[in-house]
Amino acid sequence: MNFCSHCGSRLTCGTPPGDDRERFLCTACGAVHYQNPRVVVGCIVAAHGERVLLCRRAIDPCYGKWTLPAGYLENGETVEAGAVRETREEAGARIEALTPYRMFNICHINQIYLMFRAQLADGRFQPGKESLDVGLFTEGEIPWDDIAFRVISETLRVYFRDRAEGVFPFLISDIAPAARQTIDHRQ
Amino acid sequence: MNFCSHCGSRLTCGTPPGDDRERFLCTACGAVHYQNPRVVVGCIVAAHGERVLLCRRAIDPCYGKWTLPAGYLENGETVEAGAVRETREEAGARIEALTPYRMFNICHINQIYLMFRAQLADGRFQPGKESLDVGLFTEGEIPWDDIAFRVISETLRVYFRDRAEGVFPFLISDIAPAARQTIDHRQ
Repeated sequence: MNFCSHCGSRLTCGTPPGDDRERFLCTACGAVHYQNPRVVVGCIVAAHGERVLLCRRAIDPCYGKWTLPAGYLENGETVEAGAVRETREEAGARIEALTPYRMFNICHINQIYLMFRAQLADGRFQPGKESLDVGLFTEGEIPWDDIAFRVISETLRVYFRDRAEGVFPFLISDIAPAARQTIDHRQ
Repeated sequence: MNFCSHCGSRLTCGTPPGDDRERFLCTACGAVHYQNPRVVVGCIVAAHGERVLLCRRAIDPCYGKWTLPAGYLENGETVEAGAVRETREEAGARIEALTPYRMFNICHINQIYLMFRAQLADGRFQPGKESLDVGLFTEGEIPWDDIAFRVISETLRVYFRDRAEGVFPFLISDIAPAARQTIDHRQ
């Protein structure tokens, strides 16, 4: 963020009066430009009892990897409507019986994920323009080594565990930055 | 939004290739400026069993009205940490035993509220700089006609109902725009 989106002047960084953290400030027009986390809404769609719907990404990042339908919540949209829209766009699927299921803090990229559980409404699905493929997978068929994002593999992991126990509590957890691979040079 | 925050050029509105809705576009540098809902995190803090903590606002909007501790989630912050921070800042109170309680879509102002339940940790509280006063209220003492925002009175309403029933399900609901007062001139 370099320029004021209101008046076009160059921005500075500073702590506004009464605030306790640095913001982007416009000394020309006085605007304070706050930056806040974005919400990603998504869905774990069940069908035929034991299968879930995965999409294979046709876009970067993680082109070719598998994911759950999910994307940024838009202005003017409820979280449920966002999850329905993303599932329609990415998986060509209609869903029903949405239930809030899990939330994830991904602080290092300023994202909050809200994942719903839902049912496939009519058994139909097809790849949207952001997907190479869409399919239904049993737990044993999940391509664990080819899941696009850790938040997705974590959602799938807790889902199958909760399903085995027959309870789906609404819980919030954190996705920490991926651990760096360290190489031991002492040998 | 008038100018590109990246290069300072004047913005236009248009639908980017592959998108299906209008965005703010920079024809000079190619940046697309997405706008997304912001998350407000807050807390219904219980103490002495039946009382809840309210703050009287020292800032506009709704100066002088009562509210629950709540505010915008910051970048780099978990939703729980945001609710803890807002309660410390506005009510000078430490809380514990946070449980996600209710979510509200407020689409007409592009806000998502996430309200937790929590316990007052040590019985202490005092007004922060955004509060004129802080106090503990029984259900019968709640100043219903002087609550700052509808999402706050709705949170309090469902909380006391749920508490009476002894169950606190996690649910999502919508806050619609306030109905305009219409005056019938036909008389």
